Amino acid sequence: MMAHRAELIAVGTELLLGNVVNADARILSEKLAELGIDVLYHTVVGDNPARLREALELARSRVDIIITTGGLGPTYDDLTKQTICEVFGRKNILRPELEEWVRGVFVSRGREMTENNLKQAYLPENCTVFLNENGTAPGCAFCEGGVHVLMLPGPPHECELMFTTGAEPYLRALSRDVIVSHTLRIYGKGESEVESLLYDKISGMTNPTVAPYAKPDECMLRVTAKAESREAAEKLLSPVLDELMSVVGEWVYGVDVDSLEQVCLDLLKRRGLTLAAAESCTGGLIAKRLTDNAGASKAFLGGIVCYSNGVKANQLNVPWDMLNELGPVSEPVARAMAEGARAAIGTDYAVSVTGLAGADPDEFGNPPGRVYVGLATPEGTTVKKCDFGARTRDHIRQQSANTALDMLRRALQ
Amino acid sequence: MMAHRAELIAVGTELLLGNVVNADARILSEKLAELGIDVLYHTVVGDNPARLREALELARSRVDIIITTGGLGPTYDDLTKQTICEVFGRKNILRPELEEWVRGVFVSRGREMTENNLKQAYLPENCTVFLNENGTAPGCAFCEGGVHVLMLPGPPHECELMFTTGAEPYLRALSRDVIVSHTLRIYGKGESEVESLLYDKISGMTNPTVAPYAKPDECMLRVTAKAESREAAEKLLSPVLDELMSVVGEWVYGVDVDSLEQVCLDLLKRRGLTLAAAESCTGGLIAKRLTDNAGASKAFLGGIVCYSNGVKANQLNVPWDMLNELGPVSEPVARAMAEGARAAIGTDYAVSVTGLAGADPDEFGNPPGRVYVGLATPEGTTVKKCDFGARTRDHIRQQSANTALDMLRRALQ
Repeated sequence: MMAHRAELIAVGTELLLGNVVNADARILSEKLAELGIDVLYHTVVGDNPARLREALELARSRVDIIITTGGLGPTYDDLTKQTICEVFGRKNILRPELEEWVRGVFVSRGREMTENNLKQAYLPENCTVFLNENGTAPGCAFCEGGVHVLMLPGPPHECELMFTTGAEPYLRALSRDVIVSHTLRIYGKGESEVESLLYDKISGMTNPTVAPYAKPDECMLRVTAKAESREAAEKLLSPVLDELMSVVGEWVYGVDVDSLEQVCLDLLKRRGLTLAAAESCTGGLIAKRLTDNAGASKAFLGGIVCYSNGVKANQLNVPWDMLNELGPVSEPVARAMAEGARAAIGTDYAVSVTGLAGADPDEFGNPPGRVYVGLATPEGTTVKKCDFGARTRDHIRQQSANTALDMLRRALQ
Repeated sequence: MMAHRAELIAVGTELLLGNVVNADARILSEKLAELGIDVLYHTVVGDNPARLREALELARSRVDIIITTGGLGPTYDDLTKQTICEVFGRKNILRPELEEWVRGVFVSRGREMTENNLKQAYLPENCTVFLNENGTAPGCAFCEGGVHVLMLPGPPHECELMFTTGAEPYLRALSRDVIVSHTLRIYGKGESEVESLLYDKISGMTNPTVAPYAKPDECMLRVTAKAESREAAEKLLSPVLDELMSVVGEWVYGVDVDSLEQVCLDLLKRRGLTLAAAESCTGGLIAKRLTDNAGASKAFLGGIVCYSNGVKANQLNVPWDMLNELGPVSEPVARAMAEGARAAIGTDYAVSVTGLAGADPDEFGNPPGRVYVGLATPEGTTVKKCDFGARTRDHIRQQSANTALDMLRRALQ
């Protein structure tokens, strides 16, 4: 059976104006890849029925799954359902049970419902309804002339949940083959270095396939196999994973993990250890990334954002003499910050970051992008000197956070 | 003169697999809107020459500006230049000055250059070259049969800088009219509420136009005018801005500003005041958002991420009795945290957040999404009780941070 081919059509002038990024396309593409559905195109059009119609006609000529996001809401420029109904020759009909449901959502939120919200109780006739557990616009799916059309809402948290609860079961029912993939997450080697290390091994492969991808500030390798069952796919994957690990395992921080911070938290929790952070130039970024994860409080007890010398001295016991003579961006200060955070918060481990994320050098001769990253452990403290160069503020801060987390991971593993 | 119509074509299988979001499309769309160029379509295709060719043929039939992003790099799957040359009938030629430049970039970074990088010294004949100040792949532009084709690199920080330094001057030279827009940023009212408040006023407007947009956790109004000069455009905009402010000014936190945190920092700096943060459930998010801004250290001295009761008690002087009897998610604890941070760090103002960002209630009877937000000032302390409901962790944390920053802004204004 041939793999299904999909096109994602996002509808929204706010995307074409650059007010928001097309987050839905990323989320859905990742999930469709896991289902073994090839996404061939992303298309974005504005709240413009003529151009949406043209995009739908093109899509139905070249793919067999069309997923639209956006334009299902209550306002006058939400036109997706009407336009799809016109193109595919279906009626858009009021569903009393949805009317009741939409009214109920407003009651439960204690908000008054304006009448335009009733638009959301209309759906094409003879469709599979997807309820919206995070919002008020339901979605749906139908099949017409061999083409499956799915409509999902635009706000990413609504879209993602509706995909999981409604669209994914609908799509799984279309295919027999099982697709299994594993992802190796790599920090410390770039995509092109990884590709050249592995090129001879991976370039001719067909099942499994291995594909390297650049992510911001890191890279990953995705290994995918297709087979009749999950077990058969895993059997194909296992020797390939071993082979890859023998070449790039040194820089792999996890397989099928979400992030470096999640790996660190898991390692800490498994061993019953605790962590603190002392952050100058990262300004809370490490703490923020750790606490993005539910349950972080079991290992991460807290942090000090020391964006001034006073906080470094008073909260972290960094000596004033050291700050004045060597400057806040120095190896001894990074060391004192890590040890100070470990002592003040009373944890097993502490990371520290002090550096220059801006475009200017400091008065102590440090160039832009110089960062000292410290790690205090029960066995002692290490400090790494990094020069990220005159890059963007965001890049320097993310790389500083990654360096701290990778030092912690290596110490824990 | 008719407005130029543009299509953005992003090339990269990593986008179709959902490994990365199409950040370039958002960045370029925003900048093109400011230039008065209508972006009608975003298209994404993989590293597949046949589908890229098809997308280019379609684009040249429906717009007069095509901007591609990605596929300019050194690896075998970077095919944008070759494909564009085929479609538009141009030769892809080696430019000795670019070869020298690419080699120089590697020397200056102290990295060895592999031979595949020479691919980046090839560009279509007779084009305007855009140098890449953040990477190694140059871009370019040419005009063929009335259609302008611009090629920019995929990594967003390379793409954005090259747009500003190369593509923007190229595009500005194409148009005579001046487009000026102002953006009102709103917190505390949703897009649909703002739209219904303003619908009668804005629905019939043509020049200027007013458009409301939903952003994650806030909304904005963009007012745009087209005229022969900047002065003439501003003259059209001024009465409209006054009119809008008379209706929604209560919730407008800034005009043409980047973010709530930037507004807070500016207000603090203008008055020579300082700020600290005490963060429990936001876990460093407020500090991170403040320090995303260069120069934040002039007003933001530091913060305490108190992700455990111990840190609340030891670093912020929250009484243990209070934590044990009322629980960490309570009005008195939020108050004590804000006052504790203000005293410990020695600032004029301090914000505090304590709440439940997870899906579970706590043992003190607080439901998911309950958050107490505190603000300590020289005049006293206020605490706001918020119930964000059983929403995503990210939503609750961002809304908590927004609430804290908006309380601070209102106190400062």
